Amino acid sequence: MCELLGMSANVPTDICFSFTGFLHRGGGTGPHRDGWGIAFYEAGGYRDFRDPHPSVRSPIARLISDYPIQSHIVISHIRQANVGGVRLANTHPFTREMWGKTWCYAHNGQLEAWQGLPLAFYHPVGDTDSEHAFCWLLGTLRQHFPHLPDANDTQRQACWARLHALCEELRSLGVFNMLLADGDYLYTFCSTKLAHITRRAPFGQAELSDAELTVNFAEHTTPADIVSVIATEPLTSNEAWVRMQPGELLVWHQGRIVARFTAEEKGADSPQ
Amino acid sequence: MCELLGMSANVPTDICFSFTGFLHRGGGTGPHRDGWGIAFYEAGGYRDFRDPHPSVRSPIARLISDYPIQSHIVISHIRQANVGGVRLANTHPFTREMWGKTWCYAHNGQLEAWQGLPLAFYHPVGDTDSEHAFCWLLGTLRQHFPHLPDANDTQRQACWARLHALCEELRSLGVFNMLLADGDYLYTFCSTKLAHITRRAPFGQAELSDAELTVNFAEHTTPADIVSVIATEPLTSNEAWVRMQPGELLVWHQGRIVARFTAEEKGADSPQ
Repeated sequence: MCELLGMSANVPTDICFSFTGFLHRGGGTGPHRDGWGIAFYEAGGYRDFRDPHPSVRSPIARLISDYPIQSHIVISHIRQANVGGVRLANTHPFTREMWGKTWCYAHNGQLEAWQGLPLAFYHPVGDTDSEHAFCWLLGTLRQHFPHLPDANDTQRQACWARLHALCEELRSLGVFNMLLADGDYLYTFCSTKLAHITRRAPFGQAELSDAELTVNFAEHTTPADIVSVIATEPLTSNEAWVRMQPGELLVWHQGRIVARFTAEEKGADSPQ
Repeated sequence: MCELLGMSANVPTDICFSFTGFLHRGGGTGPHRDGWGIAFYEAGGYRDFRDPHPSVRSPIARLISDYPIQSHIVISHIRQANVGGVRLANTHPFTREMWGKTWCYAHNGQLEAWQGLPLAFYHPVGDTDSEHAFCWLLGTLRQHFPHLPDANDTQRQACWARLHALCEELRSLGVFNMLLADGDYLYTFCSTKLAHITRRAPFGQAELSDAELTVNFAEHTTPADIVSVIATEPLTSNEAWVRMQPGELLVWHQGRIVARFTAEEKGADSPQ
Protein backbone atom coordinates (compact mmCIF):
# COMPACT_ATOMS: atom_id res chain seq x y z
CA MET A 1 0.00 0.00 0.00
CA CYS A 2 1.44 3.33 -1.09
CA GLU A 3 0.67 6.62 0.58
CA LEU A 4 -0.75 9.72 -1.05
CA LEU A 5 -0.54 13.32 0.15
CA GLY A 6 -2.15 16.31 -1.54
CA MET A 7 -2.69 19.97 -0.75
CA SER A 8 -4.89 22.72 -2.16
CA ALA A 9 -4.62 26.27 -0.81
CA ASN A 10 -5.82 29.77 -1.64
CA VAL A 11 -2.42 31.31 -0.83
CA PRO A 12 1.06 29.99 -1.59
CA THR A 13 1.70 27.66 1.33
CA ASP A 14 4.62 25.47 2.28
CA ILE A 15 3.86 21.86 3.05
CA CYS A 16 6.92 21.27 5.28
CA PHE A 17 4.77 20.34 8.31
CA SER A 18 2.61 17.71 6.57
CA PHE A 19 5.55 16.45 4.52
CA THR A 20 7.63 15.91 7.65
CA GLY A 21 5.01 13.52 8.99
CA PHE A 22 4.44 11.97 5.58
CA LEU A 23 8.06 11.19 4.79
CA HIS A 24 8.47 9.36 8.09
CA ARG A 25 6.20 6.73 6.57
CA GLY A 26 8.75 6.12 3.82
CA GLY A 27 10.78 3.49 5.62
CA GLY A 28 10.29 5.11 9.05
CA THR A 29 6.92 4.37 10.63
CA GLY A 30 5.55 2.78 7.42
CA PRO A 31 6.69 0.04 5.03
CA HIS A 32 6.93 2.33 1.96
CA ARG A 33 10.57 1.92 1.09
CA ASP A 34 10.47 1.92 -2.69
CA GLY A 35 10.82 5.57 -3.56
CA TRP A 36 8.90 8.79 -3.18
CA GLY A 37 8.12 11.95 -5.07
CA ILE A 38 6.58 15.37 -4.57
CA ALA A 39 5.23 17.86 -7.10
CA PHE A 40 4.62 21.58 -6.58
CA TYR A 41 2.52 23.98 -8.59
CA GLU A 42 3.88 27.42 -7.87
CA ALA A 43 2.67 30.76 -9.22
CA GLY A 44 5.29 30.53 -11.94
CA GLY A 45 5.04 26.90 -13.00
CA TYR A 46 5.50 23.27 -12.01
CA ARG A 47 8.33 21.16 -10.66
CA ASP A 48 8.74 17.82 -9.01
CA PHE A 49 11.35 15.94 -7.04
CA ARG A 50 11.53 12.16 -7.21
CA ASP A 51 13.84 9.62 -5.65
CA PRO A 52 13.77 5.82 -5.95
CA HIS A 53 15.24 5.50 -2.43
CA PRO A 54 13.36 5.44 0.92
CA SER A 55 12.28 8.95 1.87
CA VAL A 56 13.65 8.84 5.42
CA ARG A 57 17.20 8.46 4.11
CA SER A 58 16.90 10.67 1.01
CA PRO A 59 18.99 13.88 0.97
CA ILE A 60 16.47 15.32 -1.47
CA ALA A 61 13.58 14.61 0.92
CA ARG A 62 15.50 16.35 3.68
CA LEU A 63 16.02 19.36 1.39
CA ILE A 64 12.28 19.52 0.68
CA SER A 65 11.29 19.35 4.33
CA ASP A 66 13.75 22.16 5.17
CA TYR A 67 13.24 24.37 2.08
CA PRO A 68 9.81 26.02 2.21
CA ILE A 69 8.59 25.93 -1.38
CA GLN A 70 5.45 28.09 -1.56
CA SER A 71 2.80 26.32 -3.55
CA HIS A 72 -0.98 26.30 -4.03
CA ILE A 73 -1.21 22.67 -5.15
CA VAL A 74 0.99 19.79 -3.99
CA ILE A 75 0.90 16.10 -4.86
CA SER A 76 3.17 13.63 -3.08
CA HIS A 77 3.53 9.86 -3.08
CA ILE A 78 5.49 7.25 -1.17
CA ARG A 79 5.77 3.97 -2.98
CA GLN A 80 5.57 0.34 -1.98
CA ALA A 81 6.17 -1.44 -5.26
CA ASN A 82 3.76 -4.07 -6.48
CA VAL A 83 3.74 -3.77 -10.31
CA GLY A 84 7.04 -2.57 -11.86
CA GLY A 85 10.56 -2.64 -10.41
CA VAL A 86 12.03 -0.09 -8.00
CA ARG A 87 13.47 2.50 -10.33
CA LEU A 88 13.13 6.18 -11.15
CA ALA A 89 10.89 5.62 -14.20
CA ASN A 90 8.36 3.88 -11.93
CA THR A 91 8.44 6.56 -9.24
CA HIS A 92 5.33 8.75 -8.87
CA PRO A 93 4.15 11.41 -9.50
CA PHE A 94 3.92 11.07 -13.28
CA THR A 95 3.45 14.08 -15.55
CA ARG A 96 2.25 14.82 -19.06
CA GLU A 97 1.40 18.04 -20.88
CA MET A 98 -2.20 18.40 -22.13
CA TRP A 99 -3.79 21.61 -23.51
CA GLY A 100 -0.63 23.54 -22.61
CA LYS A 101 -0.91 22.56 -18.94
CA THR A 102 1.28 20.25 -16.91
CA TRP A 103 -0.83 17.39 -15.53
CA CYS A 104 0.49 15.55 -12.52
CA TYR A 105 -0.78 12.25 -11.15
CA ALA A 106 -0.15 9.79 -8.35
CA HIS A 107 -1.95 6.50 -7.72
CA ASN A 108 -2.40 4.21 -4.76
CA GLY A 109 -3.72 0.71 -5.32
CA GLN A 110 -3.36 -2.10 -7.80
CA LEU A 111 -5.27 -2.79 -11.02
CA GLU A 112 -6.12 -5.98 -12.94
CA ALA A 113 -6.13 -6.28 -16.74
CA TRP A 114 -4.75 -2.75 -17.08
CA GLN A 115 -2.62 -3.82 -20.07
CA GLY A 116 -5.76 -3.80 -22.21
CA LEU A 117 -6.50 -0.10 -21.68
CA PRO A 118 -5.95 1.45 -25.15
CA LEU A 119 -3.49 4.34 -25.42
CA ALA A 120 -3.86 7.36 -27.70
CA PHE A 121 -1.55 10.35 -27.24
CA TYR A 122 0.46 9.26 -24.22
CA HIS A 123 2.64 6.21 -23.65
CA PRO A 124 4.24 4.98 -20.44
CA VAL A 125 8.00 5.38 -19.93
CA GLY A 126 8.13 2.87 -17.07
CA ASP A 127 6.22 -0.39 -16.62
CA THR A 128 3.69 0.21 -13.85
CA ASP A 129 -0.08 -0.24 -13.96
CA SER A 130 -0.28 3.27 -12.48
CA GLU A 131 1.46 5.07 -15.34
CA HIS A 132 -0.39 3.04 -17.97
CA ALA A 133 -3.71 4.00 -16.34
CA PHE A 134 -2.62 7.66 -16.28
CA CYS A 135 -1.74 7.60 -20.01
CA TRP A 136 -5.11 5.99 -20.78
CA LEU A 137 -7.01 8.44 -18.55
CA LEU A 138 -5.43 11.55 -20.05
CA GLY A 139 -5.45 10.26 -23.64
CA THR A 140 -9.15 9.34 -23.42
CA LEU A 141 -10.02 12.71 -21.89
CA ARG A 142 -8.10 14.43 -24.69
CA GLN A 143 -9.98 12.44 -27.33
CA HIS A 144 -13.25 13.74 -25.87
CA PHE A 145 -11.95 17.26 -25.31
CA PRO A 146 -9.29 18.04 -27.96
CA HIS A 147 -8.96 21.58 -26.57
CA LEU A 148 -9.08 23.06 -23.09
CA PRO A 149 -12.78 23.17 -22.12
CA ASP A 150 -14.22 26.65 -21.75
CA ALA A 151 -14.33 27.96 -18.22
CA ASN A 152 -18.12 28.19 -18.56
CA ASP A 153 -19.79 25.80 -16.17
CA THR A 154 -21.40 23.46 -18.72
CA GLN A 155 -18.18 22.57 -20.59
CA ARG A 156 -16.11 22.27 -17.45
CA GLN A 157 -18.71 20.17 -15.64
CA ALA A 158 -18.93 17.87 -18.68
CA CYS A 159 -15.16 17.41 -18.59
CA TRP A 160 -15.15 16.68 -14.87
CA ALA A 161 -18.09 14.27 -15.24
CA ARG A 162 -16.11 12.45 -17.95
CA LEU A 163 -13.07 12.34 -15.66
CA HIS A 164 -15.24 10.84 -12.92
CA ALA A 165 -16.60 8.20 -15.30
CA LEU A 166 -13.04 7.26 -16.33
CA CYS A 167 -11.96 7.00 -12.68
CA GLU A 168 -14.96 4.73 -12.05
CA GLU A 169 -13.84 2.53 -14.96
CA LEU A 170 -10.41 2.23 -13.34
CA ARG A 171 -11.98 1.47 -9.95
CA SER A 172 -13.79 -1.44 -11.60
CA LEU A 173 -10.32 -2.90 -12.39
CA GLY A 174 -9.13 -2.92 -8.78
CA VAL A 175 -8.08 -0.34 -6.21
CA PHE A 176 -7.73 3.16 -7.59
CA ASN A 177 -7.11 5.98 -5.14
CA MET A 178 -5.80 8.95 -7.11
CA LEU A 179 -4.50 12.50 -6.90
CA LEU A 180 -4.49 14.47 -10.15
CA ALA A 181 -3.85 18.15 -10.85
CA ASP A 182 -3.63 20.53 -13.79
CA GLY A 183 -2.22 23.60 -12.02
CA ASP A 184 -5.65 25.16 -11.45
CA TYR A 185 -7.57 22.29 -9.90
CA LEU A 186 -6.72 19.32 -7.71
CA TYR A 187 -8.80 16.19 -8.33
CA THR A 188 -9.00 13.50 -5.64
CA PHE A 189 -10.66 10.18 -6.33
CA CYS A 190 -11.35 7.61 -3.62
CA SER A 191 -11.54 3.90 -4.19
CA THR A 192 -10.82 2.62 -0.68
CA LYS A 193 -8.86 5.11 1.39
CA LEU A 194 -8.49 8.90 1.27
CA ALA A 195 -9.19 11.49 3.98
CA HIS A 196 -9.14 15.27 3.99
CA ILE A 197 -9.11 18.24 6.32
CA THR A 198 -9.63 21.93 5.67
CA ARG A 199 -7.87 24.39 7.93
CA ARG A 200 -9.13 27.97 8.12
CA ALA A 201 -9.47 30.70 10.74
CA PRO A 202 -9.54 30.40 13.68
CA PHE A 203 -6.46 28.22 13.27
CA GLY A 204 -5.50 25.86 16.05
CA GLN A 205 -2.64 23.55 16.85
CA ALA A 206 -1.97 20.31 15.02
CA GLU A 207 0.04 17.33 16.22
CA LEU A 208 1.67 14.98 13.75
CA SER A 209 0.84 11.30 14.20
CA ASP A 210 4.15 10.05 12.79
CA ALA A 211 6.73 12.40 14.30
CA GLU A 212 6.99 14.37 17.51
CA LEU A 213 6.06 17.72 16.08
CA THR A 214 3.32 20.23 16.86
CA VAL A 215 2.64 23.33 14.84
CA ASN A 216 0.51 26.32 15.76
CA PHE A 217 -0.95 27.28 12.41
CA ALA A 218 -2.12 30.65 13.78
CA GLU A 219 1.53 31.72 13.83
CA HIS A 220 2.03 30.88 10.16
CA THR A 221 -1.22 32.05 8.55
CA THR A 222 -3.49 35.01 7.99
CA PRO A 223 -7.24 34.89 8.81
CA ALA A 224 -8.08 34.65 5.08
CA ASP A 225 -6.04 31.50 4.45
CA ILE A 226 -7.77 28.27 3.49
CA VAL A 227 -5.54 25.21 3.30
CA SER A 228 -6.83 21.70 2.64
CA VAL A 229 -4.76 18.55 3.01
CA ILE A 230 -5.74 15.18 1.54
CA ALA A 231 -3.98 11.97 2.57
CA THR A 232 -4.36 8.20 2.52
CA GLU A 233 -4.56 8.24 6.31
CA PRO A 234 -5.01 11.26 8.62
CA LEU A 235 -1.64 12.81 9.38
CA THR A 236 -2.56 14.49 12.65
CA SER A 237 -3.87 12.94 15.83
CA ASN A 238 -5.91 15.84 17.25
CA GLU A 239 -8.02 17.00 14.28
CA ALA A 240 -11.23 15.65 12.71
CA TRP A 241 -10.44 14.38 9.21
CA VAL A 242 -13.25 13.55 6.77
CA ARG A 243 -13.00 10.17 5.04
CA MET A 244 -13.97 10.12 1.35
CA GLN A 245 -16.50 7.59 0.05
CA PRO A 246 -15.67 4.85 -2.50
CA GLY A 247 -16.35 6.19 -6.00
CA GLU A 248 -16.24 9.83 -4.88
CA LEU A 249 -14.39 12.46 -6.93
CA LEU A 250 -13.71 15.84 -5.34
CA VAL A 251 -12.54 18.86 -7.34
CA TRP A 252 -10.54 21.34 -5.27
CA HIS A 253 -9.78 24.97 -6.07
CA GLN A 254 -7.91 27.30 -3.75
CA GLY A 255 -8.49 25.10 -0.72
CA ARG A 256 -12.23 24.61 -1.32
CA ILE A 257 -14.27 21.75 -2.80
CA VAL A 258 -15.90 23.21 -5.94
CA ALA A 259 -17.48 20.01 -7.29
CA ARG A 260 -18.31 16.55 -5.97
CA PHE A 261 -19.21 13.46 -7.98
CA THR A 262 -20.36 10.34 -6.19
CA ALA A 263 -20.54 6.68 -7.12
CA GLU A 264 -24.32 6.56 -6.76
CA GLU A 265 -25.35 9.60 -8.78
CA LYS A 266 -22.55 9.95 -11.33
CA GLY A 267 -23.59 13.60 -11.51
CA ALA A 268 -22.42 16.86 -10.03
CA ASP A 269 -23.45 17.74 -6.53
CA SER A 270 -23.83 21.25 -5.27
CA PRO A 271 -20.44 22.75 -4.37
CA GLN A 272 -19.70 23.66 -0.75
CA MET B 1 23.10 34.75 -23.57
CA CYS B 2 22.29 31.60 -21.69
CA GLU B 3 24.73 28.79 -21.00
CA LEU B 4 24.34 25.15 -21.94
CA LEU B 5 26.05 22.12 -20.42
CA GLY B 6 25.68 18.54 -21.58
CA MET B 7 27.29 15.20 -20.84
CA SER B 8 27.31 11.79 -22.53
CA ALA B 9 29.13 8.88 -20.90
CA ASN B 10 29.48 5.12 -21.31
CA VAL B 11 29.30 4.54 -17.55
CA PRO B 12 27.10 6.23 -14.95
CA THR B 13 29.10 9.35 -14.12
CA ASP B 14 28.50 12.24 -11.76
CA ILE B 15 28.78 15.70 -13.21
CA CYS B 16 29.61 17.45 -9.89
CA PHE B 17 32.96 18.76 -11.20
CA SER B 18 31.63 20.33 -14.40
CA PHE B 19 28.46 21.53 -12.69
CA THR B 20 30.47 23.29 -9.99
CA GLY B 21 32.16 25.42 -12.63
CA PHE B 22 28.96 25.82 -14.59
CA LEU B 23 26.81 27.04 -11.74
CA HIS B 24 29.33 29.74 -10.87
CA ARG B 25 28.25 31.38 -14.11
CA GLY B 26 24.69 31.69 -12.76
CA GLY B 27 25.12 35.04 -11.10
CA GLY B 28 28.74 34.35 -10.07
CA THR B 29 31.23 34.83 -12.88
CA GLY B 30 28.49 35.20 -15.52
CA PRO B 31 25.37 37.36 -15.92
CA HIS B 32 22.94 34.40 -16.01
CA ARG B 33 20.75 35.23 -13.06
CA ASP B 34 17.33 34.20 -14.29
CA GLY B 35 17.12 30.59 -13.24
CA TRP B 36 18.78 27.28 -13.99
CA GLY B 37 17.94 23.64 -14.43
CA ILE B 38 19.61 20.26 -14.75
CA ALA B 39 18.26 16.96 -16.06
CA PHE B 40 19.65 13.47 -15.45
CA TYR B 41 19.02 10.26 -17.32
CA GLU B 42 19.86 7.47 -14.93
CA ALA B 43 19.68 3.72 -15.54
CA GLY B 44 16.23 3.71 -14.01
CA GLY B 45 14.66 6.80 -15.55
CA TYR B 46 14.69 10.57 -15.82
CA ARG B 47 14.53 13.48 -13.40
CA ASP B 48 15.24 17.16 -13.45
CA PHE B 49 15.75 19.95 -10.98
CA ARG B 50 14.80 23.51 -11.90
CA ASP B 51 14.93 26.77 -10.00
CA PRO B 52 13.93 30.26 -11.20
CA HIS B 53 16.57 31.80 -8.88
CA PRO B 54 20.29 32.41 -9.61
CA SER B 55 22.21 29.16 -9.34
CA VAL B 56 24.97 30.49 -7.06
CA ARG B 57 22.41 31.17 -4.31
CA SER B 58 20.11 28.19 -4.91
CA PRO B 59 19.95 25.56 -2.13
CA ILE B 60 18.89 23.03 -4.78
CA ALA B 61 21.97 23.81 -6.90
CA ARG B 62 24.15 23.28 -3.85
CA LEU B 63 22.44 19.94 -3.24
CA ILE B 64 23.16 18.87 -6.82
CA SER B 65 26.82 19.83 -6.68
CA ASP B 66 27.24 17.88 -3.41
CA TYR B 67 25.04 14.86 -4.21
CA PRO B 68 26.70 12.69 -6.87
CA ILE B 69 23.83 11.56 -9.09
CA GLN B 70 25.21 8.87 -11.42
CA SER B 71 23.99 9.48 -14.93
CA HIS B 72 24.89 8.65 -18.53
CA ILE B 73 23.25 11.73 -20.08
CA VAL B 74 22.98 15.18 -18.49
CA ILE B 75 21.50 18.41 -19.84
CA SER B 76 21.85 21.65 -17.90
CA HIS B 77 20.99 25.28 -18.60
CA ILE B 78 21.52 28.63 -16.94
CA ARG B 79 19.14 31.29 -18.13
CA GLN B 80 19.43 34.95 -18.98
CA ALA B 81 15.86 35.86 -19.89
CA ASN B 82 15.10 37.56 -23.17
CA VAL B 83 11.68 36.23 -24.27
CA GLY B 84 9.32 35.31 -21.39
CA GLY B 85 9.38 36.43 -17.75
CA VAL B 86 11.54 34.97 -15.00
CA ARG B 87 9.40 32.15 -13.67
CA LEU B 88 9.48 28.41 -13.24
CA ALA B 89 7.38 27.66 -16.36
CA ASN B 90 10.03 29.44 -18.45
CA THR B 91 12.97 27.64 -16.85
CA HIS B 92 14.85 25.08 -18.98
CA PRO B 93 15.21 22.18 -19.54
CA PHE B 94 11.76 21.43 -20.96
CA THR B 95 10.43 17.88 -21.26
CA ARG B 96 7.79 16.01 -23.20
CA GLU B 97 7.05 12.30 -23.67
CA MET B 98 7.26 10.93 -27.21
CA TRP B 99 7.19 7.23 -28.20
CA GLY B 100 7.23 6.26 -24.52
CA LYS B 101 10.51 8.12 -23.94
CA THR B 102 11.15 11.28 -21.97
CA TRP B 103 12.61 13.95 -24.27
CA CYS B 104 14.54 16.74 -22.64
CA TYR B 105 15.61 19.99 -24.30
CA ALA B 106 17.48 23.22 -23.55
CA HIS B 107 18.06 26.14 -25.91
CA ASN B 108 20.49 29.01 -26.05
CA GLY B 109 19.79 31.92 -28.38
CA GLN B 110 16.84 33.95 -29.55
CA LEU B 111 14.44 33.37 -32.46
CA GLU B 112 12.38 35.68 -34.66
CA ALA B 113 8.84 34.94 -35.89
CA TRP B 114 8.73 31.77 -33.80
CA GLN B 115 5.03 32.36 -33.01
CA GLY B 116 4.18 31.18 -36.53
CA LEU B 117 5.64 27.69 -36.06
CA PRO B 118 2.59 25.39 -36.15
CA LEU B 119 2.01 23.05 -33.21
CA ALA B 120 0.65 19.51 -33.40
CA PHE B 121 0.81 17.26 -30.34
CA TYR B 122 2.64 19.49 -27.91
CA HIS B 123 1.81 22.94 -26.56
CA PRO B 124 3.93 25.28 -24.47
CA VAL B 125 3.13 25.75 -20.78
CA GLY B 126 5.22 28.93 -20.48
CA ASP B 127 5.68 31.76 -22.98
CA THR B 128 9.24 31.49 -24.30
CA ASP B 129 10.41 31.15 -27.90
CA SER B 130 12.50 28.21 -26.69
CA GLU B 131 9.61 26.05 -25.46
CA HIS B 132 7.47 26.91 -28.51
CA ALA B 133 10.34 25.81 -30.78
CA PHE B 134 10.69 22.57 -28.78
CA CYS B 135 6.96 21.79 -29.11
CA TRP B 136 7.15 22.45 -32.86
CA LEU B 137 10.33 20.38 -33.27
CA LEU B 138 9.00 17.35 -31.41
CA GLY B 139 5.49 17.58 -32.87
CA THR B 140 6.82 17.80 -36.43
CA LEU B 141 9.18 14.88 -35.84
CA ARG B 142 6.26 12.84 -34.47
CA GLN B 143 4.14 13.65 -37.52
CA HIS B 144 6.89 12.20 -39.71
CA PHE B 145 7.61 9.28 -37.39
CA PRO B 146 4.40 8.33 -35.54
CA HIS B 147 6.22 5.43 -33.88
CA LEU B 148 9.74 4.97 -32.53
CA PRO B 149 11.97 4.43 -35.59
CA ASP B 150 13.49 0.97 -35.86
CA ALA B 151 17.01 0.68 -34.56
CA ASN B 152 18.09 -0.35 -38.06
CA ASP B 153 20.41 2.25 -39.51
CA THR B 154 18.20 3.45 -42.38
CA GLN B 155 15.19 4.39 -40.26
CA ARG B 156 17.26 5.93 -37.50
CA GLN B 157 19.43 7.90 -39.91
CA ALA B 158 16.28 9.20 -41.63
CA CYS B 159 14.93 10.37 -38.28
CA TRP B 160 18.20 12.07 -37.35
CA ALA B 161 18.44 13.70 -40.80
CA ARG B 162 14.90 15.06 -40.31
CA LEU B 163 15.90 16.35 -36.86
CA HIS B 164 18.89 18.10 -38.44
CA ALA B 165 16.69 19.69 -41.11
CA LEU B 166 14.29 20.97 -38.42
CA CYS B 167 17.20 22.41 -36.41
CA GLU B 168 18.40 24.15 -39.57
CA GLU B 169 14.90 25.65 -40.02
CA LEU B 170 15.10 27.02 -36.49
CA ARG B 171 18.63 28.37 -37.11
CA SER B 172 17.20 30.32 -40.06
CA LEU B 173 14.96 32.13 -37.51
CA GLY B 174 17.84 33.37 -35.35
CA VAL B 175 20.31 31.84 -32.91
CA PHE B 176 19.60 28.22 -32.06
CA ASN B 177 22.16 26.34 -29.99
CA MET B 178 20.46 23.26 -28.58
CA LEU B 179 20.88 20.22 -26.36
CA LEU B 180 18.27 17.47 -26.78
CA ALA B 181 18.11 13.93 -25.41
CA ASP B 182 15.81 10.94 -25.43
CA GLY B 183 17.51 8.79 -22.80
CA ASP B 184 19.54 6.82 -25.33
CA TYR B 185 21.10 9.59 -27.41
CA LEU B 186 22.24 13.13 -26.78
CA TYR B 187 21.81 15.53 -29.72
CA THR B 188 23.82 18.75 -29.82
CA PHE B 189 23.16 21.38 -32.46
CA CYS B 190 25.38 24.43 -32.95
CA SER B 191 24.21 27.72 -34.33
CA THR B 192 26.91 30.03 -32.96
CA LYS B 193 28.58 28.60 -29.87
CA LEU B 194 29.07 25.09 -28.54
CA ALA B 195 32.30 23.25 -27.66
CA HIS B 196 33.03 19.69 -26.59
CA ILE B 197 35.72 17.55 -25.06
CA THR B 198 36.00 13.79 -24.71
CA ARG B 199 37.94 12.44 -21.76
CA ARG B 200 39.25 8.89 -21.90
CA ALA B 201 42.31 6.96 -20.68
CA PRO B 202 44.96 8.07 -19.95
CA PHE B 203 43.04 10.57 -17.83
CA GLY B 204 44.78 13.75 -16.76
CA GLN B 205 44.02 16.67 -14.53
CA ALA B 206 41.48 19.34 -15.32
CA GLU B 207 41.30 22.86 -13.92
CA LEU B 208 38.01 24.70 -13.81
CA SER B 209 38.00 28.13 -15.46
CA ASP B 210 35.31 29.56 -13.19
CA ALA B 211 36.22 28.26 -9.74
CA GLU B 212 39.43 27.34 -7.99
CA LEU B 213 39.11 23.61 -8.36
CA THR B 214 41.27 20.94 -9.95
CA VAL B 215 40.27 17.33 -10.33
CA ASN B 216 42.45 14.36 -11.21
CA PHE B 217 40.09 12.25 -13.33
CA ALA B 218 42.41 9.24 -13.08
CA GLU B 219 41.35 8.94 -9.42
CA HIS B 220 37.67 8.82 -10.31
CA THR B 221 37.59 6.68 -13.44
CA THR B 222 38.49 3.30 -14.87
CA PRO B 223 40.54 2.91 -18.08
CA ALA B 224 37.40 1.94 -20.02
CA ASP B 225 35.47 5.14 -19.20
CA ILE B 226 34.58 7.58 -21.96
CA VAL B 227 33.02 10.83 -20.81
CA SER B 228 32.20 13.72 -23.14
CA VAL B 229 31.20 17.18 -21.99
CA ILE B 230 29.55 19.76 -24.24
CA ALA B 231 29.23 23.40 -23.20
CA THR B 232 28.61 26.88 -24.58
CA GLU B 233 32.16 27.83 -23.60
CA PRO B 234 35.01 25.54 -22.53
CA LEU B 235 34.79 24.92 -18.78
CA THR B 236 38.42 24.05 -18.16
CA SER B 237 41.51 26.13 -18.83
CA ASN B 238 44.08 23.40 -19.48
CA GLU B 239 42.36 21.09 -21.99
CA ALA B 240 41.81 21.34 -25.75
CA TRP B 241 38.08 21.73 -26.44
CA VAL B 242 36.69 21.30 -29.97
CA ARG B 243 34.37 24.06 -31.18
CA MET B 244 31.34 22.93 -33.20
CA GLN B 245 30.56 24.48 -36.57
CA PRO B 246 27.41 26.51 -37.32
CA GLY B 247 24.71 24.16 -38.63
CA GLU B 248 26.38 21.05 -37.21
CA LEU B 249 24.36 18.37 -35.43
CA LEU B 250 26.22 15.74 -33.41
CA VAL B 251 24.56 12.57 -32.13
CA TRP B 252 26.23 11.17 -28.99
CA HIS B 253 25.92 7.69 -27.56
CA GLN B 254 27.83 6.48 -24.50
CA GLY B 255 30.37 9.27 -24.74
CA ARG B 256 31.07 8.85 -28.45
CA ILE B 257 29.89 10.74 -31.55
CA VAL B 258 27.87 8.22 -33.59
CA ALA B 259 26.60 10.56 -36.31
CA ARG B 260 27.43 14.02 -37.61
CA PHE B 261 25.32 16.21 -39.89
CA THR B 262 26.77 19.44 -41.25
CA ALA B 263 25.27 22.61 -42.68
CA GLU B 264 26.92 22.09 -46.07
CA GLU B 265 26.06 18.49 -46.79
CA LYS B 266 22.82 17.97 -44.87
CA GLY B 267 23.79 14.30 -44.90
CA ALA B 268 25.32 11.86 -42.46
CA ASP B 269 29.05 11.80 -42.11
CA SER B 270 31.05 8.76 -41.10
CA PRO B 271 30.95 8.25 -37.34
CA GLN B 272 34.15 8.57 -35.31
